[in-house]
Amino acid sequence: MPQQDRAYATREAILHAAAEEFDRLGYDRTSLTAVLARAGLTKGAFYFHFPSKEAVANALVERQDEVWSQVRESWRGRGLDPLTTLRGLFTESAERMSADVVLRAGVRLNAEREIGYPGVPSAHVLWEKLIGAYLAEAAEGGHLRTGVDPEAVARTLCGAAIGARLISSATTSCGDLPARMRELLDHVLAGVATSAGKLSGSQSASERASGP
Amino acid sequence: MPQQDRAYATREAILHAAAEEFDRLGYDRTSLTAVLARAGLTKGAFYFHFPSKEAVANALVERQDEVWSQVRESWRGRGLDPLTTLRGLFTESAERMSADVVLRAGVRLNAEREIGYPGVPSAHVLWEKLIGAYLAEAAEGGHLRTGVDPEAVARTLCGAAIGARLISSATTSCGDLPARMRELLDHVLAGVATSAGKLSGSQSASERASGP
Repeated sequence: MPQQDRAYATREAILHAAAEEFDRLGYDRTSLTAVLARAGLTKGAFYFHFPSKEAVANALVERQDEVWSQVRESWRGRGLDPLTTLRGLFTESAERMSADVVLRAGVRLNAEREIGYPGVPSAHVLWEKLIGAYLAEAAEGGHLRTGVDPEAVARTLCGAAIGARLISSATTSCGDLPARMRELLDHVLAGVATSAGKLSGSQSASERASGP
Repeated sequence: MPQQDRAYATREAILHAAAEEFDRLGYDRTSLTAVLARAGLTKGAFYFHFPSKEAVANALVERQDEVWSQVRESWRGRGLDPLTTLRGLFTESAERMSADVVLRAGVRLNAEREIGYPGVPSAHVLWEKLIGAYLAEAAEGGHLRTGVDPEAVARTLCGAAIGARLISSATTSCGDLPARMRELLDHVLAGVATSAGKLSGSQSASERASGP
């Protein structure tokens, strides 16, 4: 393996080992010693790539940020109706987190910095605005029931997604997150979407059974 | 003030000062020094009441446990229909957390121990079961739409409540938690309850506007 590829592989190994620890324990309780043991690396090899534990955490937070940008752009670019786009965003996010410990760790680290500590929870605000904009578009297109406040629905959906991630992360390493996400979308959209809005998304078995 | 009353007042002052710090910063980032400065007490006075930071945290976790037991019992004892009971449980919990930093800190400390770290999140499981039981009762009484899974709704409601608490805690010290909780109950119950079930609870303006 050429030296550059080896360096890249080592950096990725560090990120992956750190992600495994951060994902289980969070930032404060993760030790560099445990990360090195997991990656089978010396301190020297580590410090060649990262100056500190914080720097690895920063790299993981940046990476999840890039993934979410791509996911958002990819769904925006498909030109689907707003509620179908929302379902797609939520379910793809859940599936990716369930499958990828590096992404999961980045999301947890980002949430630890933003949620639960004083200050502006900027990623949360970004998502709430994005989702609120899709819901406002859905309202304009007649896909939300009369009197439903798109911003309030955005607050409910964002909160529900964060709570689902936390519970799923603690109990199944996000293994059941895609199922939980589909459930919460079904429950919330069943209450706020018109029949047209509901039909535009992927219907659940229970919606089909009970009718609109 | 008799000595016993003074001791009680000091213990409460420590719990309150610690709660202010834990509520803002969580367990790991809270320092005993900051708690003592806030309470205006010496280390000696502190150690007369508690052997460690962990012991204060334990006392706060126990206290929130007692509050939730009382809240659950009080709503169970009213003999109301299950969906009204659920609404009452959620809104009273949100109002109490919004009003009481000691309770809020206990809830945060308990969540930090249970959610986001490996192991069994027991308080979460307890609430999910309790809420699932009320929803199963609602289903039996014809208050849930055909095909709606009471356990799935319990998962959605618990996750949504946890997420709402986290966001509200980070942005408004739970000041807007009662409003967020009413919103999420409206959104989820609008989707899963029959007209009879929705009417049994307190209706929101938007539900009244749009009809069942």
